[in-house]
Amino acid sequence: MRTIVFVTGNTGKLAEARAKLGPLGFDVTQDKGGYPELQCDSLEEVAKEGVRAVAGRLDCDFILEDAGLFVDALHGFPGVYSAYVNKTLGCEGLLKLMDGTPENGRAARFEAVIAYYEKGTLKLFKGVCHGRISDSMRGGGGFGFDPVFVPTGDDRSFAEMCKNEKNAASHRGRAFDQFVEYLKNGQSGH
Amino acid sequence: MRTIVFVTGNTGKLAEARAKLGPLGFDVTQDKGGYPELQCDSLEEVAKEGVRAVAGRLDCDFILEDAGLFVDALHGFPGVYSAYVNKTLGCEGLLKLMDGTPENGRAARFEAVIAYYEKGTLKLFKGVCHGRISDSMRGGGGFGFDPVFVPTGDDRSFAEMCKNEKNAASHRGRAFDQFVEYLKNGQSGH
Repeated sequence: MRTIVFVTGNTGKLAEARAKLGPLGFDVTQDKGGYPELQCDSLEEVAKEGVRAVAGRLDCDFILEDAGLFVDALHGFPGVYSAYVNKTLGCEGLLKLMDGTPENGRAARFEAVIAYYEKGTLKLFKGVCHGRISDSMRGGGGFGFDPVFVPTGDDRSFAEMCKNEKNAASHRGRAFDQFVEYLKNGQSGH
Repeated sequence: MRTIVFVTGNTGKLAEARAKLGPLGFDVTQDKGGYPELQCDSLEEVAKEGVRAVAGRLDCDFILEDAGLFVDALHGFPGVYSAYVNKTLGCEGLLKLMDGTPENGRAARFEAVIAYYEKGTLKLFKGVCHGRISDSMRGGGGFGFDPVFVPTGDDRSFAEMCKNEKNAASHRGRAFDQFVEYLKNGQSGH
């Protein structure tokens, strides 16, 4: 059994990591110490700066994860600031911004980046889920912008799916899948 | 003549600093090296973290400044992320978010914080300008959200004022005035 620390305050994400990494023989423990998040254009930059900070206080292998919703018609907004925008404007605000935007202009994507810091080396694993912003909030599950995001190939929002369905299709699920591949095969992230 | 470095990429802000500090015998020079901006709730936190980073690379007294627009009806949005939100959503996006909000619900404030790092000690000077979000964009001057912000006691937006008028009434002008008072009298910031 190998231990890996997940720097996160979110117990849902912790459970997802355990479900993915447990079968590979990893014991995933939680660190709630957090890390400073930069204002910048990409999740990769946020993750790299976070790793730099956490590496200064943890003396073990660890992962951290950052995710965001990028809406094409809004020039990538809310992007790396998704948590803040969800807290202030909410799904209602996002729908208001998209008001009047036709079906073919509502493309958006969820992105997630997992940063793995192992023996002083950083690897990044990215998962993307393409889809569109719905016309209204739908579903009672999920969190954040899940009620207004419909992944490509489905008619339901993330909030209308059960947890396992969402985790299989989601940006975070895909990032974890890449991380699992790396751990299994020693293939490199970037 | 005493030299003070202003860490900013904005030549308009540099000119404003020179106009305010020159008469006190300060030679204000520009440093374009920038600093990392944190994701957090207040300008003070952004400024403090910026000072920490700049102090690591500059061996002299310096100032930096951060500003933002805080809209009451949007729970403080766009706040410390104003530059990013202006770039992605613009004034049009902000007006869309405020669509349907009556006159008495359109209160907002511009805030500016100047951080002064002098011989290893940090002082913060804050300026606030209260006002409201207009119904439409007005005026061709200023930058950022100036065309949609009308300061209390005036009917014109910041973008309808000449530079000197705006600088006298603005959040940044007020922060600089406090800084000037401190330099004149040795009164303390916070």
